Amino acid sequence: MEREWPATGQTPETHRQITAESPSETAPIRDGVVPFGRGAQQLPTVQPNPESSTLDPKIAERLNWNQDGLVPAIVQEQGTGEVLMLAWMNAEALHRTLTTGRATYWSRSRREYWVKGQTSGHHQHVRSVRLDCDGDTLLVTVDQVGAACHTGAHNCFFTTLES
Amino acid sequence: MEREWPATGQTPETHRQITAESPSETAPIRDGVVPFGRGAQQLPTVQPNPESSTLDPKIAERLNWNQDGLVPAIVQEQGTGEVLMLAWMNAEALHRTLTTGRATYWSRSRREYWVKGQTSGHHQHVRSVRLDCDGDTLLVTVDQVGAACHTGAHNCFFTTLES
Repeated sequence: MEREWPATGQTPETHRQITAESPSETAPIRDGVVPFGRGAQQLPTVQPNPESSTLDPKIAERLNWNQDGLVPAIVQEQGTGEVLMLAWMNAEALHRTLTTGRATYWSRSRREYWVKGQTSGHHQHVRSVRLDCDGDTLLVTVDQVGAACHTGAHNCFFTTLES
Repeated sequence: MEREWPATGQTPETHRQITAESPSETAPIRDGVVPFGRGAQQLPTVQPNPESSTLDPKIAERLNWNQDGLVPAIVQEQGTGEVLMLAWMNAEALHRTLTTGRATYWSRSRREYWVKGQTSGHHQHVRSVRLDCDGDTLLVTVDQVGAACHTGAHNCFFTTLES
């Protein structure tokens, strides 16, 4: 979910978010604590220090973040079991996902938070968040509104590879 | 799937593979082309240059490898739709997965190829390999023999996180 610009020439939801919801360069950062909802437009453009996240320390200590303070989050549709996409979360994105019930990611390309569907309306209502055996991958089950993929496809995995 | 050693104290399949199948330091590398099957025990311990992989160039050019020449591979069980694990592939691991039908990964911690089930018998017989919309994530559907997780659990996502 990290391409800067789609090969399809379509305008992806993610780009519209940049246009509509790009944070102010002067947005205040209060120890990485950023108000949710409308306040999300005031998100910092720099990734907060995981130590400054509001994620429950009991949860944070179970995660093995990569060198960038991120873990991949596999997104699976509740009910159908369809794997929709993979995105990335830092500690604060995980905190927001757990506490708001709306899937929230960290965009590595834009270096900002990304509330799935905030512009497109294609929200992901979180049903569960699970951590893998070695703490370095999340599995998020969601009720998907509309298409999960910026191309308009329901999921991002529509290209089959064959030898 | 990258912890050096499990917190459970159990001996993971991946470690047994190091013991049983650690490649020879002097194993010959013929432009990254390594024989499969028994020959897999002669795998190089260094990651081959993606350009030297035998992966079909038409497939390789569609992938957006990370800075380490890898992409995450989500592994989903055919039929049940259960997400079993996440592992990593380089170009040669993807080539072997596509051409042998046995899920083969690149272990970032051991810096060697890892044919799932080669020691444990918990093979993953590949049913399909799909690429996501921006070419940086794979979805591999498999028929899983036995447990996918080194802990003995059927899948690696048995810890639920709650705010």
